[in-house]
Amino acid sequence: MCNLDSGRHRGHHQPRTVTRGECDLVKARCGPASHQRMPLSDLETKALDEHFLICSYVHGYTASQGDAALFRQFKCAPPSHLCHLLRWYTHIHSFGRESASFPAAKKESLTLLINDKEVTIMVNNSMEAEGQGEAGQPPAPEEDIVTPHTVQASSNKGIDYDKLVDRFGSSRIDEALLERFERLTGHKPHRFLRRNIFFSHRDMHRILDAVESGKKFFLYTGRGPSSNAMHIGHLIAFIMTKWLQDVFDVPLVIQLTDDEKYLWQKDATKKDNSLEHYHSLARENAKDIIALDFDVNKTFIFSDVDFVGGAFYENVLKVQKHVTFNQVKGIFGFDESSSIGMIMFPAIQAAPSFSSSFPFIFGNKKDVPCLIPCGIDQDPYFRMTRDVAPKIGFQKPALLHSTFFPALHGASSKMSASDSTSSIYLTDTANQIKKKINKYAFSGGRDTVEEHRELGGDCEVDVSFMYLTFFLDDDEKLEEIRQQYSSGKMLTGELKAELIKVLQKMMAEFQERRKLVTDETVKQFMTPRSLKF
Amino acid sequence: MCNLDSGRHRGHHQPRTVTRGECDLVKARCGPASHQRMPLSDLETKALDEHFLICSYVHGYTASQGDAALFRQFKCAPPSHLCHLLRWYTHIHSFGRESASFPAAKKESLTLLINDKEVTIMVNNSMEAEGQGEAGQPPAPEEDIVTPHTVQASSNKGIDYDKLVDRFGSSRIDEALLERFERLTGHKPHRFLRRNIFFSHRDMHRILDAVESGKKFFLYTGRGPSSNAMHIGHLIAFIMTKWLQDVFDVPLVIQLTDDEKYLWQKDATKKDNSLEHYHSLARENAKDIIALDFDVNKTFIFSDVDFVGGAFYENVLKVQKHVTFNQVKGIFGFDESSSIGMIMFPAIQAAPSFSSSFPFIFGNKKDVPCLIPCGIDQDPYFRMTRDVAPKIGFQKPALLHSTFFPALHGASSKMSASDSTSSIYLTDTANQIKKKINKYAFSGGRDTVEEHRELGGDCEVDVSFMYLTFFLDDDEKLEEIRQQYSSGKMLTGELKAELIKVLQKMMAEFQERRKLVTDETVKQFMTPRSLKF
Repeated sequence: MCNLDSGRHRGHHQPRTVTRGECDLVKARCGPASHQRMPLSDLETKALDEHFLICSYVHGYTASQGDAALFRQFKCAPPSHLCHLLRWYTHIHSFGRESASFPAAKKESLTLLINDKEVTIMVNNSMEAEGQGEAGQPPAPEEDIVTPHTVQASSNKGIDYDKLVDRFGSSRIDEALLERFERLTGHKPHRFLRRNIFFSHRDMHRILDAVESGKKFFLYTGRGPSSNAMHIGHLIAFIMTKWLQDVFDVPLVIQLTDDEKYLWQKDATKKDNSLEHYHSLARENAKDIIALDFDVNKTFIFSDVDFVGGAFYENVLKVQKHVTFNQVKGIFGFDESSSIGMIMFPAIQAAPSFSSSFPFIFGNKKDVPCLIPCGIDQDPYFRMTRDVAPKIGFQKPALLHSTFFPALHGASSKMSASDSTSSIYLTDTANQIKKKINKYAFSGGRDTVEEHRELGGDCEVDVSFMYLTFFLDDDEKLEEIRQQYSSGKMLTGELKAELIKVLQKMMAEFQERRKLVTDETVKQFMTPRSLKF
Repeated sequence: MCNLDSGRHRGHHQPRTVTRGECDLVKARCGPASHQRMPLSDLETKALDEHFLICSYVHGYTASQGDAALFRQFKCAPPSHLCHLLRWYTHIHSFGRESASFPAAKKESLTLLINDKEVTIMVNNSMEAEGQGEAGQPPAPEEDIVTPHTVQASSNKGIDYDKLVDRFGSSRIDEALLERFERLTGHKPHRFLRRNIFFSHRDMHRILDAVESGKKFFLYTGRGPSSNAMHIGHLIAFIMTKWLQDVFDVPLVIQLTDDEKYLWQKDATKKDNSLEHYHSLARENAKDIIALDFDVNKTFIFSDVDFVGGAFYENVLKVQKHVTFNQVKGIFGFDESSSIGMIMFPAIQAAPSFSSSFPFIFGNKKDVPCLIPCGIDQDPYFRMTRDVAPKIGFQKPALLHSTFFPALHGASSKMSASDSTSSIYLTDTANQIKKKINKYAFSGGRDTVEEHRELGGDCEVDVSFMYLTFFLDDDEKLEEIRQQYSSGKMLTGELKAELIKVLQKMMAEFQERRKLVTDETVKQFMTPRSLKF
């Protein structure tokens, strides 16, 4: 679950490949070209810096083998004054070995204009080819890959969520469920539910059955604390969870998997790889989570490093006894070189699904149903959990699955912790939010005002519009914006202004609450104790 | 570590194959015989009951494929009035799948005399052969197999401990070490050291260096609580440990691996397989351990189920991150069908080797050296630990290795928890001890008094003599007995009387102390707290 992004129920990227034309600066040339390949000249790096000022990638709006090939031409990071090139470099670097699964390069070279001179840089796979005796890269997979470790779309239309529901054997959140939801709770379903941002579920009707018969359930969600810099994408599962907690008045447990982040960290160049580091990140991240206004009387937050033990360890063992290496190999793609920590970890993520892991909350009740709001990429953990549960005498947890949260650069790019322009951080000021959205939010608008007025903007690929679907609660206003933008009446700048307004307000409120969260508050949330519900 | 026997630093069996002749009742017939194979007639089961009254196995003094084949002819356990046959049956049953690695049957049939009639029972491998298309069993391994899960000698001379020291890369406990020991402590080395019962070590000189320079170390040993019925073999490592603690005045941690015993338990027919069962066994076993007179001010006993967490879990994670599946596969013989609990467990056994796992004892001292007295079969765990230690900034633990403790039926048989005649239990009365030794202790004496007087007894295979080497502290007396017995002056009955006297005294003292151990005492020992040293 840890290579792709920085969180567990993290800001999820939406690997939808955008098919607009190339950036203006780039005049790509098809066919092989006979230019020097290494080292890059100053002129070439300068040209690349200008290219990456505007474009996220070598070609188009997704990382490709073109990026991987160009990346290989650098023996070290570009100098810091070439900040756009450096941003691109650290972004590609952050993929590590994942870059091997980028789709094939669209063209063999990248031709840039600088001082009116054409500069052509080879970005074919020849270096790779030298080693492998064969050019070209593995083609895109035949079906979407969605695991806790990799999310890759099979086509440029992005993840096909309907197919995913079929493949995973989960259920679409449909009108009937939403109606039952509203009837039972008296609340209009949250916008995440109304808009299919949470689009799939397992056993949600069983949870509603329990509610209907006056029984309580409990909520479980979590985060892998890999960085201090949480961004708005990380909030999605927590916003959903808080709303569910408020509506149903149920207890909530939040797992911070500092152990996982330590076990998965392989990058020896990282400044601090220690377990202690991830453990302290857990407490820092807890502050951001608490600032979403969770009720301390109903919420228990725990770091695995602090909490694993006792009743919780007993349930970990019960899961571990009933899962084989073959199974986790199949589910999570482990191999024989995986550490025994990684191999055992899925049981740690499974254990909070069972109320008996928290005797101080549930006493002797071993059958309190559990509902887990999470990103669809986390489903494998809970498929495993649901498989094991009856074998160890427990109830299967129910699930609510969310889609992926798009990166600022476009739905198909990755939100990178090392690229601060790829997302809105929880610490960003109003001004930073404005600048980032205006400068980096990928636009579905047309190249000229005239064209835009004529053809209208494309809401399907416009990140600002997507973000509004996440954060603007007013359905009518959202629909109005959609119509105005796609008809060409509303320009990109106006759309962005709407989003900036919404985010600035949301973030100002969040940051106000965040200031009030002290170490003492964290301690309260993280102390095992009975909860009120 | 758990299939072979019921403890971790458990009563170890010594798989030396004895080559005396067959029991008198048995007239074995070589070559195939054409008799009915199933079901066994009443006459046959009666004959077998008489056979097993005197003999432990179908042929000779080790379990063979003959036993496995005969066992397969029973669809269920024999009736309880055939108590000797039933004892044999439960004994063979206790091996489970291990029976596949028994050596080949010596003969294809077993011919018994009953009421002067010959009864021949087929004990060849034909049933196995039907399935496999090939008769015969895997031959004995080319070298001794000593792992936490399997102990199997390659020859009938038993485990070659010298070769083991070479193969494991440990060091023989030699005269120089013992002299240094005595010089430093002012104590004559314990009989286990003098008699090479503890025969091998790692880094013992480093521990003595620390002692010499006025530094403290700590002791770590443990037990896998698989049964309430601890026997005298289980005491060996604890007796050694207590003596070391007394001589060096150092703190001691004792790990009870209730988690391990739960994870390894595969026998679904067992009355109670639950984690809770093994957890409660840990507390029961702690009482027996405490009754060896450990000092509560210097000793911390813990059950993994209670104790894994916090600083201990942090060290578990550090080990787990640095060990791959390939490594534990190589070290412990896991395969892809092993549970992820088994795969992760070696880190749980490694963690107590590091003083930082016990902050309440050692405060911030992360470099207190650790000495582990244990059976040589546990060495793989600590080879792994020593391999990982420098990678996570810790000292390698030092080790003292013991040989295997022989079963009552003979050094090559297994001490079975389900066969109460195979060992002396800590709960046995003086009378039971006397009866068991007289009836079951395998004798190296001759068949007739005349022969014995002429040829002398064989101390090498005589279990009573072996037990005296473990429990009779007086070197001169032991040597006198050895000479008298092997010269034929002392008869088996007289030798057994010596052992009975020693064991009855030892057990009476133990049982007196055991009576005084209350739940409150256990709680004291098992409470994390600072120790005095």
